[in-house]
Amino acid sequence: MPFNTLSMRNRAIIRIQCPDQPGIVAKVTDFIHRNNGNVLDLDQHTDAGEKRFFMRVVWDLTDFTIPRDHISTVFQIELATPMKMEWSLDFSDKKLRMAIFVSRSSHCLFDLLARHMEGELDVEIPLIIGNHVDLEQIVQKFDIPFYYFPINKDNKAEQEEKEFKLLEEHGVDFVVLARYMQILSSNFTEKYPNRVINIHHSFLPAFAGAKPYHAAHSRGVKIIGATGHYVTSELDEGPIIFQDVNHITHHDSIESLVQKGKDVEKIVLSRAVKAHVDRKTLVYKNKTIIFN
Amino acid sequence: MPFNTLSMRNRAIIRIQCPDQPGIVAKVTDFIHRNNGNVLDLDQHTDAGEKRFFMRVVWDLTDFTIPRDHISTVFQIELATPMKMEWSLDFSDKKLRMAIFVSRSSHCLFDLLARHMEGELDVEIPLIIGNHVDLEQIVQKFDIPFYYFPINKDNKAEQEEKEFKLLEEHGVDFVVLARYMQILSSNFTEKYPNRVINIHHSFLPAFAGAKPYHAAHSRGVKIIGATGHYVTSELDEGPIIFQDVNHITHHDSIESLVQKGKDVEKIVLSRAVKAHVDRKTLVYKNKTIIFN
Amino acid sequence: MPFNTLSMRNRAIIRIQCPDQPGIVAKVTDFIHRNNGNVLDLDQHTDAGEKRFFMRVVWDLTDFTIPRDHISTVFQIELATPMKMEWSLDFSDKKLRMAIFVSRSSHCLFDLLARHMEGELDVEIPLIIGNHVDLEQIVQKFDIPFYYFPINKDNKAEQEEKEFKLLEEHGVDFVVLARYMQILSSNFTEKYPNRVINIHHSFLPAFAGAKPYHAAHSRGVKIIGATGHYVTSELDEGPIIFQDVNHITHHDSIESLVQKGKDVEKIVLSRAVKAHVDRKTLVYKNKTIIFN
Amino acid sequence: MPFNTLSMRNRAIIRIQCPDQPGIVAKVTDFIHRNNGNVLDLDQHTDAGEKRFFMRVVWDLTDFTIPRDHISTVFQIELATPMKMEWSLDFSDKKLRMAIFVSRSSHCLFDLLARHMEGELDVEIPLIIGNHVDLEQIVQKFDIPFYYFPINKDNKAEQEEKEFKLLEEHGVDFVVLARYMQILSSNFTEKYPNRVINIHHSFLPAFAGAKPYHAAHSRGVKIIGATGHYVTSELDEGPIIFQDVNHITHHDSIESLVQKGKDVEKIVLSRAVKAHVDRKTLVYKNKTIIFN
Repeated sequence: MPFNTLSMRNRAIIRIQCPDQPGIVAKVTDFIHRNNGNVLDLDQHTDAGEKRFFMRVVWDLTDFTIPRDHISTVFQIELATPMKMEWSLDFSDKKLRMAIFVSRSSHCLFDLLARHMEGELDVEIPLIIGNHVDLEQIVQKFDIPFYYFPINKDNKAEQEEKEFKLLEEHGVDFVVLARYMQILSSNFTEKYPNRVINIHHSFLPAFAGAKPYHAAHSRGVKIIGATGHYVTSELDEGPIIFQDVNHITHHDSIESLVQKGKDVEKIVLSRAVKAHVDRKTLVYKNKTIIFN
Repeated sequence: MPFNTLSMRNRAIIRIQCPDQPGIVAKVTDFIHRNNGNVLDLDQHTDAGEKRFFMRVVWDLTDFTIPRDHISTVFQIELATPMKMEWSLDFSDKKLRMAIFVSRSSHCLFDLLARHMEGELDVEIPLIIGNHVDLEQIVQKFDIPFYYFPINKDNKAEQEEKEFKLLEEHGVDFVVLARYMQILSSNFTEKYPNRVINIHHSFLPAFAGAKPYHAAHSRGVKIIGATGHYVTSELDEGPIIFQDVNHITHHDSIESLVQKGKDVEKIVLSRAVKAHVDRKTLVYKNKTIIFN
Repeated sequence: MPFNTLSMRNRAIIRIQCPDQPGIVAKVTDFIHRNNGNVLDLDQHTDAGEKRFFMRVVWDLTDFTIPRDHISTVFQIELATPMKMEWSLDFSDKKLRMAIFVSRSSHCLFDLLARHMEGELDVEIPLIIGNHVDLEQIVQKFDIPFYYFPINKDNKAEQEEKEFKLLEEHGVDFVVLARYMQILSSNFTEKYPNRVINIHHSFLPAFAGAKPYHAAHSRGVKIIGATGHYVTSELDEGPIIFQDVNHITHHDSIESLVQKGKDVEKIVLSRAVKAHVDRKTLVYKNKTIIFN
Repeated sequence: MPFNTLSMRNRAIIRIQCPDQPGIVAKVTDFIHRNNGNVLDLDQHTDAGEKRFFMRVVWDLTDFTIPRDHISTVFQIELATPMKMEWSLDFSDKKLRMAIFVSRSSHCLFDLLARHMEGELDVEIPLIIGNHVDLEQIVQKFDIPFYYFPINKDNKAEQEEKEFKLLEEHGVDFVVLARYMQILSSNFTEKYPNRVINIHHSFLPAFAGAKPYHAAHSRGVKIIGATGHYVTSELDEGPIIFQDVNHITHHDSIESLVQKGKDVEKIVLSRAVKAHVDRKTLVYKNKTIIFN
């Protein structure tokens, strides 16, 4: 797919999953073609074991005969209901609104902000929330409002409630945890199913939990990694979007593991976020389909 | 796609390329669906710059209403001619026949034979041709006929002619050059367009030509690689199928470069061959589409 | 270091570890220099946290004034005792004798045998032991004796005892488990401390235990890996020598994971074996130092 | 080596190269040991083909009996002159002063500044020079002076002369070209031998010159890379410090190549800069030794 498909205007993106059955591709592409849409990109996948079908289609709306706000209704009646589809429809000119949660580490935050400035991440960033104040100054350099919510055992529920209201007020579509070192309650994450993205600083499922670099150093592994995943109520168990690794040696101390780890973390988180922003992710049973 | 789609019987694989135009996917999938075929796998790509469309579709023939030997004719009339398609149709139960050309190095040959024995490469290997005798003994361990064609400036045309006849007699579909250190004449390669696969022991286009490891060592690069590609009449310029690399350091001598290089070479060649065998490659203007 | 240092004759290799203290490098290199040895390669590492020193030195024995069979005694008195060193001395012209244990999978076995034939693994292979007969035919192609020891709960101790005797008779220095799908008893492995090398078909510590590819597929990871390690009495917990990974996608079935996994497994195992053969490994507290 | 060796105070780092000869390690470590220094890290390499020896040693100066400003003189007389060494001595508490040259792309600049803020790059950045004004605003966010030197054919010599004076005034030790899209004259680079670091946005020597991503796309390669190297008067031919790559597919347009390339570029440049800052590089005949 051309890089800028989504940044170009007047396109529809549909993501579908349903029980596998004959004729799905034919019917969906016929639906688009028959209504004068032009398919620009199509990627499908069938999970033979699960007998489940997944597809993402992008088409040009310029000459499409169904008005934008009727597409959903027509699609539901003609295709989704008979074929038992779960689906979502997006338009390329709707910018997603992304909130970022941070603690003290700046490398992932910087990487996201730099990509945003360069136009690589086509989102709006209405606010950044920290449970520490350390990064407030950096955030201010980028003219983005920073909110400070210190969190402890006693105030957690209350603070998360406030955060949630703030996100609602700002019309936030999804949340990125950029090395946010505080576990969100299920109460919170369940409000954003498959819409909270976390970077775990290890190659999950190895070294889940806290201090993975200490665990990696102590075990003497020769590779470290990082995992970008959607957050579910099961800690470190959510659907994995992207992973990458770096080779290490016996020369690496915990400090240098942390440093080499940061390089992987920021790239992995940003690529996971980009896949989400480009509407290329689909979740089924705790696993992801990542479309081309 | 499930790993063994192709090794399972009674499936059709079609690979198509044509000028981009509305409705291609709809028409092809409708053709299959309408004739009672069930699409098992579909991967398409549009090159926006070239305005060209590429697609690979696998479908189940069990209930397909068009008899096997009529599919081509019907498809040509109904779809290929009107849409100006170049296309090829394969059946999963037709095993390709692969010849291997070798010189003195055994690592790529071994890797191919080991995969063949383990059932990973679902081909027949009617013969192996060497321009040196060194590997004859290895080949005999595997009960495959070995033919020795020493080649020099004077006998090249004549020897290639004999080799070609031998390949024809054995019904060879494609040729793998497993570190065959002898340049095939265009006369020969043009008889097998996109059907001769070579491993170049460098990361093309860096260090094309002979002695790439010497060149890499002398330039002081920190990474070496290998390139699996189709052979064309332009030396080292054919369409690239797969590439991979290995990190190296100043500790590596030319000898250890060669050795680390072999690890990359054999994996890259075998993956390129597997993509070809699985009918997942398509060539357009000296570049490849590699389907999922 | 030049690739062929060890395959060249008349060299000594010493590996040392001891509490960190001033002057170790100076004293060891002075010992060699003073006795007319020429240092060809030296690699040292200090673990600052553990306050422990590790070093490997290779030197030319041509003009060395201490006779070979006295070096150990002199070194022990002059240096090892005063500095509390654990150390081992090897000579480049002593070929290690390697036994291979296999079950049914041939890819790792093939890779080792191919490297042996090409001269990359400078060892002797006096025998191969299988707990299944499947690979006997392959082994015979290479003219290596194959011994079949079927193992079940009841006969395990007895069979291992026979295996051990066979290894002793053949003067085996170390054992490679080339996808040997049978857990060795501690009784056995303790007889070969840091001399049994296993390939675990996952990126340890993720997916320890059996069926790691099923576990990886079920968890939906985006990378698989393999781990070459020394075997200890703690299953899957021994010191890691080398690891590597392969990226995978949602398209990969368990079967294709297994296949991509095999490519990593065989390379990782062979590199771990080569590091051992080249006397480049040193174990401390369940971790390895891998020298240049 | 522990990560923070250099950021800790009161250490000496010496880098040496000389013709290979017996006893170098013994004499140098004895020199340090005899004067009450404690070796913290030592890495040596012998290029057997070139018969040349390279070494980097770090030692603790706390109890060293030679005063800092005499070490050079004593070392020269006792060791360097007799052994024909080229060498340099650094102290861990001397922060290097780094200038950054930029054009319009911000990703490499951001990455360097972010690492600087996080304390990973232990340097001072007295100024940033641009041949375009585009990045002035970003630079100002970080409170670093920005100087604008537009360059064209006619004013190049004159502008470089001004730049050079500015660098001298600010006591700049080395220059980083962070996607600076203007070729420095040899006149300029010769003033900073092995002290100007460039990121070439391709895997050199493939696609040297301008527009490498266009060339890569047109050639249909399956991997792109980036190269961090010292700048010499030969364009794109200087000693390579670090390289890395990213896999790509036929789905990648030139735009997405550029984007994936940026991820590699910034990591590669930063790692090359870090190796330089940590005094871990040594250049010999257009190649680098990168110490542990």
